[in-house]
Amino acid sequence: MLGAIETGGTKFVCAIGDEKGNIAERIQIPTTEPGETLAKVIAFFQQHRLDALGIGSFGPVDVNRDSQTYGYITSTPKTAWRNYPLIQTLKEAFPVPIGFNTDVNAAALGEITHGAARGLDSCLYITVGTGIGAGAVLQGKLLQGLSHPEMGHILVRRHPDDHYQGKCPFHHDCLEGLAAGPSIEERWGDKVINLADRREVWDLEGYYLAQALMQYILILSPKRIILGGGVMNQKQVFTSIYTYLEDFLNDYVSLPKISDYIVSPGLGNDAGITGSLILAYQAWEEANQ
Amino acid sequence: MLGAIETGGTKFVCAIGDEKGNIAERIQIPTTEPGETLAKVIAFFQQHRLDALGIGSFGPVDVNRDSQTYGYITSTPKTAWRNYPLIQTLKEAFPVPIGFNTDVNAAALGEITHGAARGLDSCLYITVGTGIGAGAVLQGKLLQGLSHPEMGHILVRRHPDDHYQGKCPFHHDCLEGLAAGPSIEERWGDKVINLADRREVWDLEGYYLAQALMQYILILSPKRIILGGGVMNQKQVFTSIYTYLEDFLNDYVSLPKISDYIVSPGLGNDAGITGSLILAYQAWEEANQ
Repeated sequence: MLGAIETGGTKFVCAIGDEKGNIAERIQIPTTEPGETLAKVIAFFQQHRLDALGIGSFGPVDVNRDSQTYGYITSTPKTAWRNYPLIQTLKEAFPVPIGFNTDVNAAALGEITHGAARGLDSCLYITVGTGIGAGAVLQGKLLQGLSHPEMGHILVRRHPDDHYQGKCPFHHDCLEGLAAGPSIEERWGDKVINLADRREVWDLEGYYLAQALMQYILILSPKRIILGGGVMNQKQVFTSIYTYLEDFLNDYVSLPKISDYIVSPGLGNDAGITGSLILAYQAWEEANQ
Repeated sequence: MLGAIETGGTKFVCAIGDEKGNIAERIQIPTTEPGETLAKVIAFFQQHRLDALGIGSFGPVDVNRDSQTYGYITSTPKTAWRNYPLIQTLKEAFPVPIGFNTDVNAAALGEITHGAARGLDSCLYITVGTGIGAGAVLQGKLLQGLSHPEMGHILVRRHPDDHYQGKCPFHHDCLEGLAAGPSIEERWGDKVINLADRREVWDLEGYYLAQALMQYILILSPKRIILGGGVMNQKQVFTSIYTYLEDFLNDYVSLPKISDYIVSPGLGNDAGITGSLILAYQAWEEANQ
């Protein structure tokens, strides 16, 4: 039996399932303070005989296995969770192999294994919601270097008509600062859901996301790009992205048909939890080689 | 005996050597039209008994082994070389295993094996010269997805005081359009060599390159960054890059000491040809498994 946890800023999704992405049981636990949240997580999994556990976590996290703080949530703005030893806490409760990565890397793994990038050896998964993050599989492996990517914070060129100051506490008007959900709502003064019919909102959103995709394509050359997260439920953003991206790239690189290349998640909201099951399976395989 | 070719817009460097990067003999052949240039390349290698050949080529090139045009130089602005079957021509002359990649991927491979990134499993190699290009090794493998990266063409934010229009025929004021050698010379009206003492020239250059490095770091998280090419012989650019990059990143990601992290090539001008020898060796190994 495999256990999976997708940790998020508002909730922890916990699931029991298999590496094929079948989910037998799942619960959601609100993200409050670490002791309380983890007690509920542990109580859920103690009802099952776990062979391995996989975690896709909000970040930043320490994914360097050689590091003394491997498995910690590190410099998150959520102060109660800062420098929290997530893996260590779970390892004490469950002495099984534990796979660990970012939530977006887990989602990329889920999508390439069972979702919209199935059959390929590379994909990029981007979530546009309360923040912007991305994970990638390249040549069959989750992207990791010095640390995990932080693709949401790249710089974009400001639209000449956009005078919103940006919301990122580190970089003000980086991509996340201009295009994540809270920025959209602050700029336009209303909830995303109430902005659905405002064409200029989604045109501008596409302008920024297309710039980001241009950078990702030129730097990573992924074989498919998957855009998830709450903001991407506004499907008109895709049209705006396609138009701006073709304009920006100006035929410099040859891409597949753009609506087949830049797509919605095949697994809907389950990309992250499915990927976490696969992380669990990979950890089990590695321990039983 | 391994053969290596580093193809460039002005010259082909051909070498005989081994996988340790030892070069026994080398020549330079001017890049004129393909028939003439390749005849000289083939004549050079016919003096040796080749076991394998490695090529690091200017691009864009087709690096997809499943493609019908694998090994072609594709949409280069050098019209005589457009859609030129480089590997096929060499394969007819030398029926040996041939390794093939971009010049900058070859340089990244050279630097990680024998140069400034030795001992690491990832690095990014950037050349700033007549164009801007980059190659990367990630988790021990050369970066490749849909195609090879085209990192020189990413978008940067224009400096408010910079009114130069940019020189890229595709994107005008992308990174290459604003920061490659010909752009510097056109903007300031003099040869790079004569601009060495103009502090504002290298400050602005660092401003653009630091933006590019920020994007590369957030997206790829390389373990070391190596900056080569003619423009980078102006060592004062490094100081400008360090200053701007720390300002832009604003401590969002934790990096090694910046002067150890962003460095000059360990192999000087031989990164590309050394990497091409390693490409030859890898092709030989693959054929003799």
